[in-house]
Amino acid sequence: MNAAEKALVIFSGGQDSTTCLFQAIREYGRRNVHCITFLYGQKHGDEVKVAQKIAAEQRISTHKLVDLAWYAQVTTNALLDSAVEISRDADAGYPNTVVDGRNMLFLLVAAIHAKSLGIQDIIIGVSETDFSGYPDCRAAFINSCNATLNLAMDYAFRVIAPLMRLTKAQTWQLADELGVLEYVAKNTLTCYNGVIGSGCGSCPSCVLRQRGYDEYMELKG
Amino acid sequence: MNAAEKALVIFSGGQDSTTCLFQAIREYGRRNVHCITFLYGQKHGDEVKVAQKIAAEQRISTHKLVDLAWYAQVTTNALLDSAVEISRDADAGYPNTVVDGRNMLFLLVAAIHAKSLGIQDIIIGVSETDFSGYPDCRAAFINSCNATLNLAMDYAFRVIAPLMRLTKAQTWQLADELGVLEYVAKNTLTCYNGVIGSGCGSCPSCVLRQRGYDEYMELKG
Repeated sequence: MNAAEKALVIFSGGQDSTTCLFQAIREYGRRNVHCITFLYGQKHGDEVKVAQKIAAEQRISTHKLVDLAWYAQVTTNALLDSAVEISRDADAGYPNTVVDGRNMLFLLVAAIHAKSLGIQDIIIGVSETDFSGYPDCRAAFINSCNATLNLAMDYAFRVIAPLMRLTKAQTWQLADELGVLEYVAKNTLTCYNGVIGSGCGSCPSCVLRQRGYDEYMELKG
Repeated sequence: MNAAEKALVIFSGGQDSTTCLFQAIREYGRRNVHCITFLYGQKHGDEVKVAQKIAAEQRISTHKLVDLAWYAQVTTNALLDSAVEISRDADAGYPNTVVDGRNMLFLLVAAIHAKSLGIQDIIIGVSETDFSGYPDCRAAFINSCNATLNLAMDYAFRVIAPLMRLTKAQTWQLADELGVLEYVAKNTLTCYNGVIGSGCGSCPSCVLRQRGYDEYMELKG
């Protein structure tokens, strides 16, 4: 079998990466889909349990958990430190939920693991149309990181970001097309306050998720 | 003070990074030099003690130790696993001491730490003229990684690899010009078998180090 026929999904148990997971299952077949989930001092350890439950239910090939506890040693922010309130940093232009270098770290560790499994395709659920403006969610970063990974390990990785140009409404549409709209709505966790499914309803992540859902439902009619 | 007037040195306590450290002290002043050392299951934990001793003796500004114990979870090789004998992999063209993605990981974590200290300049002691042929020691990788880091964190890092085009003999020459030839020869650890200074004399790293030393001494006359 060609290495390109297997994929490693960077999987958090949230709406975006779960939608990517279902798309990967359709495209590669569940036996060729592998997942990797990172523990890095998230406020809600429940997120990992949610990811484990979904991965187990979908009977994918392997699910690797990697503990990045040390990450909090080198940086500080609201997602890692429960004493910091989540807010927008007016100067920086993006919210203080940004964890410097997070997606680069995830891609790098995923790539190291993927190569050890003979996998070239790495799937990540980032989107530059997202509200956040995180620099490491942009296509320019993803493409540059792909090139750097290939040079670093002398290996032909292909970093795939299926949601890059999708709005939240379009990500819900994709889930619907994959036949998993209801599953994603009920079983994923994106809420900053750790409430599964439709969430607390008031944190920035819940507001974004619900607005996208409503938009899609209106379009669908 | 300009952020460019401070530097973070990726520091292992070996010949190369110690030479880089002394060069950084000369160029930035010791109070503007910071170090970062990684623990990642090296065969010789002594390497870290050597690094700590040198950093303390040189009275640099800060010395950060980061434990990357999880690294062994995602990859396997001779430097991380004492059951694997160090040898050259004839197929791959480089020895099995290669740790996939190591320099990219070091640069990424160093960059996260540097940004938190307001530092833009990151110094790494890699060389592409080295015997090893490691893909992540090449200038093409370093330049690509620099660009990716800047995109990932929206920050103007400058990755500096002062030894990139130097042979081992020229690195000894640089130490001599910095007035630390004897210090580097006696106090650094590069030997795979953990013998400080001139080393065990028989591992690939000792052979390389000694050959460079002898070459430089012959040139110097």
